[in-house]
Amino acid sequence: MSGFKNQREYFRHLRGLGPLPEGFRAGTTSFTFMPAERPSEEPYRMDLSAVVLDEPTDVFAGAFTRNAVPGAPILIARERIGKPRMQGVLINNRISNVAASGGRATAERLAAEAGRLLGIDGSLLFPSSTGIIGWALPETEMTAALPDLARNLGGDPRRDGLPLDIARAIMTTDSFPKIRVRSIGAGRIMAIAKGAGMIEPNMATMLVFILTDLDIPRDVLREVLVQSLDGGFNAISVDGDQSTSDMVLAFSSRRFPVELGDFRREFIGLCRDLSLDIVRNGEGTGHVMEISVSGDADADFLRMIGRAVGNSPLVKTAVYGNDPNVGRILSAVGDCAGNAGRSIDSRRLTISIGGHRVFADGVFTISRETEEILAGYLAEQSQNPRISGYPQNDNLVKIAIDLGGEGGKAERIYASDLGHEYVSENADYRT
Amino acid sequence: MSGFKNQREYFRHLRGLGPLPEGFRAGTTSFTFMPAERPSEEPYRMDLSAVVLDEPTDVFAGAFTRNAVPGAPILIARERIGKPRMQGVLINNRISNVAASGGRATAERLAAEAGRLLGIDGSLLFPSSTGIIGWALPETEMTAALPDLARNLGGDPRRDGLPLDIARAIMTTDSFPKIRVRSIGAGRIMAIAKGAGMIEPNMATMLVFILTDLDIPRDVLREVLVQSLDGGFNAISVDGDQSTSDMVLAFSSRRFPVELGDFRREFIGLCRDLSLDIVRNGEGTGHVMEISVSGDADADFLRMIGRAVGNSPLVKTAVYGNDPNVGRILSAVGDCAGNAGRSIDSRRLTISIGGHRVFADGVFTISRETEEILAGYLAEQSQNPRISGYPQNDNLVKIAIDLGGEGGKAERIYASDLGHEYVSENADYRT
Repeated sequence: MSGFKNQREYFRHLRGLGPLPEGFRAGTTSFTFMPAERPSEEPYRMDLSAVVLDEPTDVFAGAFTRNAVPGAPILIARERIGKPRMQGVLINNRISNVAASGGRATAERLAAEAGRLLGIDGSLLFPSSTGIIGWALPETEMTAALPDLARNLGGDPRRDGLPLDIARAIMTTDSFPKIRVRSIGAGRIMAIAKGAGMIEPNMATMLVFILTDLDIPRDVLREVLVQSLDGGFNAISVDGDQSTSDMVLAFSSRRFPVELGDFRREFIGLCRDLSLDIVRNGEGTGHVMEISVSGDADADFLRMIGRAVGNSPLVKTAVYGNDPNVGRILSAVGDCAGNAGRSIDSRRLTISIGGHRVFADGVFTISRETEEILAGYLAEQSQNPRISGYPQNDNLVKIAIDLGGEGGKAERIYASDLGHEYVSENADYRT
Repeated sequence: MSGFKNQREYFRHLRGLGPLPEGFRAGTTSFTFMPAERPSEEPYRMDLSAVVLDEPTDVFAGAFTRNAVPGAPILIARERIGKPRMQGVLINNRISNVAASGGRATAERLAAEAGRLLGIDGSLLFPSSTGIIGWALPETEMTAALPDLARNLGGDPRRDGLPLDIARAIMTTDSFPKIRVRSIGAGRIMAIAKGAGMIEPNMATMLVFILTDLDIPRDVLREVLVQSLDGGFNAISVDGDQSTSDMVLAFSSRRFPVELGDFRREFIGLCRDLSLDIVRNGEGTGHVMEISVSGDADADFLRMIGRAVGNSPLVKTAVYGNDPNVGRILSAVGDCAGNAGRSIDSRRLTISIGGHRVFADGVFTISRETEEILAGYLAEQSQNPRISGYPQNDNLVKIAIDLGGEGGKAERIYASDLGHEYVSENADYRT
């Protein structure tokens, strides 16, 4: 399945996930601690999780934030991604281990100790962290929690609820757990994500862990992961910010044969579905926009235009208010192109909203009647942003922009709107 | 004067403007019309204004939006800026004449008719429009209003209230009139602006008209105008959007001699002051940030970093909430540099807020105590965004970023915060 029309379908999807792919084990634990940086406050809760393969694998891949001041886990992962084999990941939420003194050594010690308790080489684990920037990991408390984590990893690895437990344990301000799964023959691809929740001095960090028991070569997995990014995890935008900790990791336990074409298609489709779950999860998201841009041979330029429209605060607030505001879309397109030193022939440019043509031949083609129809269309695509928790539908506000030149296929960007709930979530935490 | 500590000082500034510089006349009128695009609504009000020189001048200059789908007035102005002489500008608010059928011919006919009534060549007038995108100018009603405008231009050109009348007549959703003036010897430079008000299908259009009776050569005026942009009108950001209609025009009536160095210094200072007025005027602005970036030889890169911080919705909402959120600033810096393919040595990077060092040597240097001091600092710099109208102070939230490399002077960007009032202003117009 790729979509869901209502919450009931989303719940059915979560209930029908099945166990982890074969050859993987996972576990989670939680504890509270008093952060040194905020001594007078209530205790903080941290979840600690691990996903490991039964044996080390040479089939693993990763993609990491391009942020120029990345966190310690990213610095370690960039090194370990070049190793011949890896065996899993150790994950914590609450503190991201970015810009904290000695953060790198702490992460390495925790992975070593987790490995010792699990009977595997700790340098074969990727550390992965999300949460507050600038604070130190509570190493003492985390170390004390590792034996419990190791015990939980010793439970039944085929338990149906295990994937959902992991998805819940890596959440920070996420409003619902995000997992997608696809089957090919006897094997499966399962992807677990957190992302797009923003609160406290925290980032919209995206963590994605993709587990498969399908046997593909290492270079195929690495190639397919890169291919999946443009239409998937790199095509989404909530704030326009790329966090210091974004990380996508994929592992194969190599249990079942698969046609490479099938694997590629299902892997890319799964990543796109999960990307949409992440955008929909943005705190206070009322609408998800699909901005499709065509009519130029330069795919990078098409994506840049889509991103400019999706990141424009004026477009985002208009969509939030169910306002089919053609002027703001037009201006964002022209602003982006102008800044990039590219000209646009406005007589060949067309813009549509929800399939209705609203701009052509250099002028608005929206009547008062169409405007009312489109305001209704926008309202129909919305979720109530005041109802948090599981998504109410998988509707998209479709904005199509054709630049009018020669070009291949359309590029698509997915973006959230911007409303009062976003401001409250991101500004009001001290009140 | 360049600053004002409270509303009383701002009112004193407005009362002390004096008349237009010598050699200029101005007038304004207003009328209502029923827009064809929204037949069932209330009548709309439009203000129509003109500022003209007593004789055509060869000393004029202009800077225009780089938006790739500009409005008809911009297309006409880009041509007329190359003419040997010009004599003034005809300005309307309410409708921006962008992407409207036949918009260019309409603007040219209106300028021709205004010129005929004023006894000057209409092709020596720049048309200038701001307001709703996509609608046609109400040409019939505007033409009918031109005789009244011409009569008003026949009044006393030395009247003290005239500059303020023009500043008020070009406002759209601006919350206060914006004028700055500087004297050098017997002559003056006066600049009148609108901008940064956003509502309806309207853009944050900035219009600036700079009038001087100081006698400088044409090429000096053009050069100084370009020099003023980097630290002035190009250094400000409310939405990150550049509208389809942004326009800066400058004219000299060449009445009084001036040292070119004096002129340059006062002109650039005046443009910076007026730029800050425009940011402060953003609907719902609670804080104005001054983001100063140093430590790299590439000034464009420094400005790009400053803009990324000032445009980050996460930084903007944190500042709105008086939250000294170092993580979001750090992440915005790293995100921008990473996307530009530039590395940052985080051990040499420093960040300060309000003069307090909050990041150095790769780690946060903010204690719980400093955090409370800085939250207080942010609150002190704020205006109450719920009180519209004249600005309550000229305070700035000072964020200083040093990239740690070799570099010359700091580049400064000025940006507004983002809060509930911004969302209401931009999303709720249908309610």
